[in-house]
Amino acid sequence: MRHIISIMVDNKPGVLARVSGLFSGRGFNIESLSVNETLDPTLSQMTIVTRGDDRILEQIDKQLNKLVDIIKIVDFHSKENNYIDRELILIKVNVDDKKRSEILSIIDIFRAKVVDVSHNCYTVEITGDEKKITAAINLFRPLGIKEIVRSGKAAMSRENK
Amino acid sequence: MRHIISIMVDNKPGVLARVSGLFSGRGFNIESLSVNETLDPTLSQMTIVTRGDDRILEQIDKQLNKLVDIIKIVDFHSKENNYIDRELILIKVNVDDKKRSEILSIIDIFRAKVVDVSHNCYTVEITGDEKKITAAINLFRPLGIKEIVRSGKAAMSRENK
Repeated sequence: MRHIISIMVDNKPGVLARVSGLFSGRGFNIESLSVNETLDPTLSQMTIVTRGDDRILEQIDKQLNKLVDIIKIVDFHSKENNYIDRELILIKVNVDDKKRSEILSIIDIFRAKVVDVSHNCYTVEITGDEKKITAAINLFRPLGIKEIVRSGKAAMSRENK
Repeated sequence: MRHIISIMVDNKPGVLARVSGLFSGRGFNIESLSVNETLDPTLSQMTIVTRGDDRILEQIDKQLNKLVDIIKIVDFHSKENNYIDRELILIKVNVDDKKRSEILSIIDIFRAKVVDVSHNCYTVEITGDEKKITAAINLFRPLGIKEIVRSGKAAMSRENK
């Protein structure tokens, strides 16, 4: 099963290495991870996407809870669709006169932003959930992608309506 | 000095723990980090923001280069303004009838998207460079921020014009 896990931690050296070491120590690959500061500069927020056996992940959760630097853990897997997740991608795509209009129409469809332009390529910024990001990559790919860089996910629980 | 470092690595368990361990082993705190898949599913791309002595960072760079799982390292610090960096933030802000119009005008100014609405709060998505993200936080903060989650940075070199 795939899990999106949000962890609030102390913002200090070594915490990321310990948390990621707990996952790799049990053979879990981290598909994507984001960590950044919070409103409180002494705390950081991680969003981890991983895939694996639920029982082993429960053990990891328990071990995480024992680390003194961990403030709070939420596994959005158990919350069904009660969360929002977004990621950002920069795509550098090759452009020539033949492809230009098709590329511009994809940019329009995805409400993407062109953030850099050179003679023969555009750098495009797109945000959305994973489905949208994957769809954009799949449309740009046959036109010639030079490079992509994806942020990790940022995930947050929805408020009760 | 502050550094934005982009690292291409093998997409397998343990690599993130080793890379982050090299930084923390020398007392470097990672301010933010993003890691995600690339077009080639066997490779992942990390973007790390850290701050510290340039000479020690050079040593870390050399050690990173020795790890077998590291494909390529670029330190954007040395490239001056020849790169693009973007991050994404989700901000959950308290809303009431008195504050609503002010919040909507900030959303408009920052070309933000409202991604979730409940009775008394909006969840807003903003993307941009760090300056823009910080400015948005500073405008929303006196109105009552309930929670923020920031992705790490995604950074990419600019093409030669």
